[in-house]
Amino acid sequence: MYDDKVREECGVFGIYNTNAEGDYLAKQTYLGLMALQHRGQEACGLAVNLNQEITFHKNMGLVDEVFSEEVLSRFKGHMAIGHCRYSTAGSKKDKDAAQPLVINYAKGQLAIAHNGNIRNVLELRAIYDEKGAIYRTHTDTEIIAYTIAKQRLSEGSIEKAVAKAMHILEGAYSLIMMSPSKMIVARDPFGFRPLCFGRKADGSVVFASETVALDAVDAVYERDVMPGEIITVQHGEIKSNTENCGQNGGKMCIFEYIYFARPDSTVQGQLVNDSRRSAGQLLAKASPVEADIVIGVPDSGIPSAIGYSEASGIPYVEGFGKNRYAGRTFIRPDQMSREAAVRLKLNPLRKYVEGKRVVLVDDSMVRGTTNKIIIKMLREAGVKEVHLRMSSPPYKYPCYYGTDVSTTSQLIATDHTIAEICEEIGADSLAFLQLSDLPHIIPDVKDIGYCEACFTGDYPI
Amino acid sequence: MYDDKVREECGVFGIYNTNAEGDYLAKQTYLGLMALQHRGQEACGLAVNLNQEITFHKNMGLVDEVFSEEVLSRFKGHMAIGHCRYSTAGSKKDKDAAQPLVINYAKGQLAIAHNGNIRNVLELRAIYDEKGAIYRTHTDTEIIAYTIAKQRLSEGSIEKAVAKAMHILEGAYSLIMMSPSKMIVARDPFGFRPLCFGRKADGSVVFASETVALDAVDAVYERDVMPGEIITVQHGEIKSNTENCGQNGGKMCIFEYIYFARPDSTVQGQLVNDSRRSAGQLLAKASPVEADIVIGVPDSGIPSAIGYSEASGIPYVEGFGKNRYAGRTFIRPDQMSREAAVRLKLNPLRKYVEGKRVVLVDDSMVRGTTNKIIIKMLREAGVKEVHLRMSSPPYKYPCYYGTDVSTTSQLIATDHTIAEICEEIGADSLAFLQLSDLPHIIPDVKDIGYCEACFTGDYPI
Amino acid sequence: MYDDKVREECGVFGIYNTNAEGDYLAKQTYLGLMALQHRGQEACGLAVNLNQEITFHKNMGLVDEVFSEEVLSRFKGHMAIGHCRYSTAGSKKDKDAAQPLVINYAKGQLAIAHNGNIRNVLELRAIYDEKGAIYRTHTDTEIIAYTIAKQRLSEGSIEKAVAKAMHILEGAYSLIMMSPSKMIVARDPFGFRPLCFGRKADGSVVFASETVALDAVDAVYERDVMPGEIITVQHGEIKSNTENCGQNGGKMCIFEYIYFARPDSTVQGQLVNDSRRSAGQLLAKASPVEADIVIGVPDSGIPSAIGYSEASGIPYVEGFGKNRYAGRTFIRPDQMSREAAVRLKLNPLRKYVEGKRVVLVDDSMVRGTTNKIIIKMLREAGVKEVHLRMSSPPYKYPCYYGTDVSTTSQLIATDHTIAEICEEIGADSLAFLQLSDLPHIIPDVKDIGYCEACFTGDYPI
Amino acid sequence: MYDDKVREECGVFGIYNTNAEGDYLAKQTYLGLMALQHRGQEACGLAVNLNQEITFHKNMGLVDEVFSEEVLSRFKGHMAIGHCRYSTAGSKKDKDAAQPLVINYAKGQLAIAHNGNIRNVLELRAIYDEKGAIYRTHTDTEIIAYTIAKQRLSEGSIEKAVAKAMHILEGAYSLIMMSPSKMIVARDPFGFRPLCFGRKADGSVVFASETVALDAVDAVYERDVMPGEIITVQHGEIKSNTENCGQNGGKMCIFEYIYFARPDSTVQGQLVNDSRRSAGQLLAKASPVEADIVIGVPDSGIPSAIGYSEASGIPYVEGFGKNRYAGRTFIRPDQMSREAAVRLKLNPLRKYVEGKRVVLVDDSMVRGTTNKIIIKMLREAGVKEVHLRMSSPPYKYPCYYGTDVSTTSQLIATDHTIAEICEEIGADSLAFLQLSDLPHIIPDVKDIGYCEACFTGDYPI
Repeated sequence: MYDDKVREECGVFGIYNTNAEGDYLAKQTYLGLMALQHRGQEACGLAVNLNQEITFHKNMGLVDEVFSEEVLSRFKGHMAIGHCRYSTAGSKKDKDAAQPLVINYAKGQLAIAHNGNIRNVLELRAIYDEKGAIYRTHTDTEIIAYTIAKQRLSEGSIEKAVAKAMHILEGAYSLIMMSPSKMIVARDPFGFRPLCFGRKADGSVVFASETVALDAVDAVYERDVMPGEIITVQHGEIKSNTENCGQNGGKMCIFEYIYFARPDSTVQGQLVNDSRRSAGQLLAKASPVEADIVIGVPDSGIPSAIGYSEASGIPYVEGFGKNRYAGRTFIRPDQMSREAAVRLKLNPLRKYVEGKRVVLVDDSMVRGTTNKIIIKMLREAGVKEVHLRMSSPPYKYPCYYGTDVSTTSQLIATDHTIAEICEEIGADSLAFLQLSDLPHIIPDVKDIGYCEACFTGDYPI
Repeated sequence: MYDDKVREECGVFGIYNTNAEGDYLAKQTYLGLMALQHRGQEACGLAVNLNQEITFHKNMGLVDEVFSEEVLSRFKGHMAIGHCRYSTAGSKKDKDAAQPLVINYAKGQLAIAHNGNIRNVLELRAIYDEKGAIYRTHTDTEIIAYTIAKQRLSEGSIEKAVAKAMHILEGAYSLIMMSPSKMIVARDPFGFRPLCFGRKADGSVVFASETVALDAVDAVYERDVMPGEIITVQHGEIKSNTENCGQNGGKMCIFEYIYFARPDSTVQGQLVNDSRRSAGQLLAKASPVEADIVIGVPDSGIPSAIGYSEASGIPYVEGFGKNRYAGRTFIRPDQMSREAAVRLKLNPLRKYVEGKRVVLVDDSMVRGTTNKIIIKMLREAGVKEVHLRMSSPPYKYPCYYGTDVSTTSQLIATDHTIAEICEEIGADSLAFLQLSDLPHIIPDVKDIGYCEACFTGDYPI
Repeated sequence: MYDDKVREECGVFGIYNTNAEGDYLAKQTYLGLMALQHRGQEACGLAVNLNQEITFHKNMGLVDEVFSEEVLSRFKGHMAIGHCRYSTAGSKKDKDAAQPLVINYAKGQLAIAHNGNIRNVLELRAIYDEKGAIYRTHTDTEIIAYTIAKQRLSEGSIEKAVAKAMHILEGAYSLIMMSPSKMIVARDPFGFRPLCFGRKADGSVVFASETVALDAVDAVYERDVMPGEIITVQHGEIKSNTENCGQNGGKMCIFEYIYFARPDSTVQGQLVNDSRRSAGQLLAKASPVEADIVIGVPDSGIPSAIGYSEASGIPYVEGFGKNRYAGRTFIRPDQMSREAAVRLKLNPLRKYVEGKRVVLVDDSMVRGTTNKIIIKMLREAGVKEVHLRMSSPPYKYPCYYGTDVSTTSQLIATDHTIAEICEEIGADSLAFLQLSDLPHIIPDVKDIGYCEACFTGDYPI
Repeated sequence: MYDDKVREECGVFGIYNTNAEGDYLAKQTYLGLMALQHRGQEACGLAVNLNQEITFHKNMGLVDEVFSEEVLSRFKGHMAIGHCRYSTAGSKKDKDAAQPLVINYAKGQLAIAHNGNIRNVLELRAIYDEKGAIYRTHTDTEIIAYTIAKQRLSEGSIEKAVAKAMHILEGAYSLIMMSPSKMIVARDPFGFRPLCFGRKADGSVVFASETVALDAVDAVYERDVMPGEIITVQHGEIKSNTENCGQNGGKMCIFEYIYFARPDSTVQGQLVNDSRRSAGQLLAKASPVEADIVIGVPDSGIPSAIGYSEASGIPYVEGFGKNRYAGRTFIRPDQMSREAAVRLKLNPLRKYVEGKRVVLVDDSMVRGTTNKIIIKMLREAGVKEVHLRMSSPPYKYPCYYGTDVSTTSQLIATDHTIAEICEEIGADSLAFLQLSDLPHIIPDVKDIGYCEACFTGDYPI
């Protein structure tokens, strides 16, 4: 991983408006995907439905690279869905894997945008293999397509087929789909990945992974899609099917609050920025240290650093300048030193940190390589002591529900003690958020539990 | 159709050499595709097999647009196949339809390059639909993939699966495929589309739609693949399976000689240029006219014009200058007048034609629009009389075996008499090659019959 | 202007190392330009000198769009200069205007990268016109080239020619140049635009508009180039010519501290972030208001907001989520509403601001359109009162020294009272930094005065 | 040189119509440049004049690569000029050298498209250097611009300035230019390079290097611009200035007939195809040989081969298949063998040549490398004897008037006897067109002499 972070795999977006004209919905989808770009920067795409015919455009690249005014103008319709993605960790670039996946099958076209990860892919693939299935990619999405297509053969409607498919598909999936006549949205019964919807003043119904995408198209948030819920939009009417709901309390990914989601998103009622600030406050209480200043690693470490400062009384200072263009450099760490890559991105403010005992707050640690470089840079800038505080517990177990950490080999916390890590990265002290504090970072979340398997190994499935 | 011509749908190429190093075979495939570019200019691609793993690159565009030195350098392997294509007439651009099609299925990867057209696609699709099949394109190739994949479940080897699939697939198919360990080449029992192979001095085995692709990689032609034959190359050994051969005399497409193939290709032992010259000679005998000069419509009308001149004694003259860059203009006829498009491409040589009675030889007529414009241009250049001679019989029936004329609505000869056409296009006289002369344009063809369904409506299947 | 900000016109970079191998300096220049990208996002380029021959690459676009690994690899040399730029306000896109400008003249090649604005361009052009000069652009840089080239005819060295040219050129210019054998760096006698240099551990001498570019290539800052100074590097030796120094106290642009420079840059000894924080503190003292929270407009308003909070005791809160990908959208405000463009970029955190009396701190106001939209968005998010505080005095006069505000028509403060502006943008109160506080935001600046003409109309030239 | 041919350096085009609307003239210029593409394939561009303001678009690449529908649509105006070019032999790619060159000078804008080569560039440059001139390129065109700009300072109109400049500029130049209010066209007093004009039915006046460009836009040829003539178009009126005419008989480049011009162009009244055919006939008479067939090297050798056949009675046969896509391969001869490059392009028709004694007709020989490969390929195809006949005299002297052969080192004929060349390339016999036959290949040319300096070393200047 370029910057030593765990990656969310995808963002999904959908918009429906029977009265939409021209490329209006394609442009709204573009805006929505721009707002979800942080959830997947490797590839993106959109599909529109015009008079029951679905067309699409997708490619490797950022949203503003894949789409242009001219491209969008070709996608007219009254429904549209969009997707942005990372590739799964370790896999090669799968050229045909950009989404939405648009297929034909016995009942016509189906477009699928998927955020998540199916656990029983191999079992399902074996079943479909027996029927002579062929695959163009190694993605879960193609397995989802087969599963729904197969169910649709015996079920009378696409939403019933999806409902049945949800009994077969195990794992994480927030799905936004289009059939020739409907938009169908579904969230797995555990609700691992977020999914919400809202409405625009012009009547458009909007679905998205995060509320920031609703904000971007000026839609008003209504509620989160419930774990297990299927929502169908047809002829402008919204129907909810809850037959797969309530199987469990829900297991929403806690990491959305720690790192994945944008701080200005509200996930299940909880403002993400607030979670991060709370984590900082809790850290300050559980792992205090005598220091002169608190600084955060931009961007996601900043709210926690502010929280740490608030709770500890140690002044918060902007410790780093950030090059907001650095994210796009084509120079990969293996072409120049990894250190140069970090240096291009972050620049310690010597004046503020020199001679200081510093509390450095970051959100999460994967391999620790970037933390090590940042600490080295701080010492070169004259910092006296570096006390690293992580606003999440040690990341020890792979995630099978939609992120890119699929083996423990990437995780320093799996086989190192905190003391060992501290020495390895060169910090004067190191502390993590306590597991028992996790519930306290999401006080506003109601009616749904959370998944902390990456910290505990206690997998819901 | 831009230039009022019937289109071949594809060209295929394959090369195998266990000792090949680096991107050598990818570059050979590039050369082979360049030589086959006339068979398909809309999209192209290649797939290579390196240590049983197949990777690919394909896109919309000409061979030299889709590939670059840099792209080719990434495709190392000891087997490679390539493909260039047109889209089917009337269909929209099918984005995922570029070939080779590379799939995964129960037995691993399979790469397929296909030239032809499957007749019973709808019947087969209905069967696969029942099994829950999903499709990414509307191409026959995906149906071929399903058919072979399904057979492979019960057959012990890929070549046996292909042999069985050939009982199921009806229509035209010249296939070049790669499994993880083999190259498999097959030609339908009618042998509609051409397919031949040869060998390079370095031991490489080369398969291609036309001999010009063998020439381009300096391979020596060995023979044409027989109708119904399956050839498998593994561990450097070539095996021929002829169990599907000999079901009929073969029905090779006669239009390959008239227009599709390059004049310097030898198809089934017959030099294409010779066929065209013969057609001209036969035309001169059957449809003589008193005239001052014979001119041909570049490029494919030239050999027939020369033949006409040889047989009639009327001097052959280069009647048109040709802009060899015009083929690539992005300006479509609907953006400027169709006439301007023709004018950009062809330029009558006034000095040679002014005041003359001209025999104008062209290869085939679809809608007649271009002929009409050319005749108008000739009259503007001072031509006294235009006697149009077509080196093929009237094109009256759609082709279902691998070209882009699938309905009669595009064919002027279907519902017009020769006199009507002559008046419509403004010629002083018009004659076509006689059906009975067709066998005489391919005197060197042995052991295989030919398909003339587009002229007679007498379909082999 | 897309986001209603005044624009710096350029960033310059240069690096010299006689022992540099291959494309090392080109890659360092790439890193330097990445760090200076905020100073000009419309076009960029670099030139290298290999064995006295200068070659270049430049184009419209961001640094990471114009350059690729492959492009950089073609630029080998032991000297390199780079440039990034905006176009001048109001001018059309001047295709040949990307820099470095590389010319030939009587004495060979000369490459010029320029940040600034020449005041007496018209007078000089009239003189050169008389000699039959021709121009490829409307840029000052071409006039600089003529001026230096002309002086070089009578002066014995390029540095002497530059010294003479500095008597002729009036205005702002920070220049980094290469002759076949030397790197020549010059800053106008007023020192309007910043320019500094440092050294890398490997002996490379590095010049740049801002220290962040030194940081990006791991160079250690030595000092700022003095107003009027010419520095020449040849055979690895640095020589300073100060004959044009000391003519006045220097008039460095104060706006570099307010908005242009990156907060982590140190300009003339003054950390930019500190200036902004101080401005906020000063604002709080001079223009206090009763409020619940202080928020800043990202990014440049944040440090001032923190300063305001520090001095006022009103808690600082992150009021906006920011889409860090929004900067690159191809959708221009005239294609969708300007409001949608702002919404894509900034997202109020309703939870933090709802029901609150808010101090909103921003850095500077040009037309006020964006402030108006932001205030509207805050009110929609439930804010009770908005007290806008600008961390700079009212911008009333055009700048002729290297920015893109060349007429007063773009400036709301020129012909509106503060009360009128307050009403126009919909704030509850509005206050600007006091002119008399300006010196207090740059306490660490020594030995150079500053230019505040844009606030006072009191132009140094 | 990729294909061992001497290169024309440029094609020029201009069109004027006060009533033109929108991008009509830009599109006509596109068509004209497409027709002139053979004269320069490295770079191209156009400039339009709308209400006295000139804008332009130019780049490296073929006409259909540099322009698109979208690009053309931005260039509205009532005058337009276009240019396509090769780079000068041996020079590096000069990035800013694409034309038209658009400059500003004392009297406003001037756009220049130039075909030719100025002999006294160094002398003129020395003069301008003294005035402090700066140059962006190494092109003659910039020197032309300086010369005209300088004259314009003292002359009352642009056409008078051009008339004076023609006394100063020595060498070859066919110029099409635009000032803010006029189109100005000039041909050097020797008339080295062709230039003609015509009119469209809609009143547009069209200028072009060759008549094929008039044909492409459906303009009717009026006459060739006379050597030394200046034509000015303003307010729809055409004025001819002949004060520089008649200084000599004219020295039009004979190589236009041999290789440069398209066969369907008529240059100074002479159809180019006719010249080539005549050359073949003359060759047959002067250098007969006993043989079975005559074949030509496509494309420019074909008419001469036909002529040879006509005069000798030896039957003409199409000896080669040609890949009409091969011209654009990105694979350069140094990346694969030069032989593979030729093989991709030309394919001997074994059936026609095997066992035959062949007269092989080509147009001209530079280094002879391609002839050598072609002869080798013919022998591999079973040819018994190869008698090479060149339809031009031995090319022995560099050309200084607008082609890319500027040193004798590239020319095999300079220091080899015919016998030596014959052995080197492996022919059984070799003969060139006789110098004394040159006048006979242009019987229709009136009122102008020709330049044969490349054959005789007898330079007009």
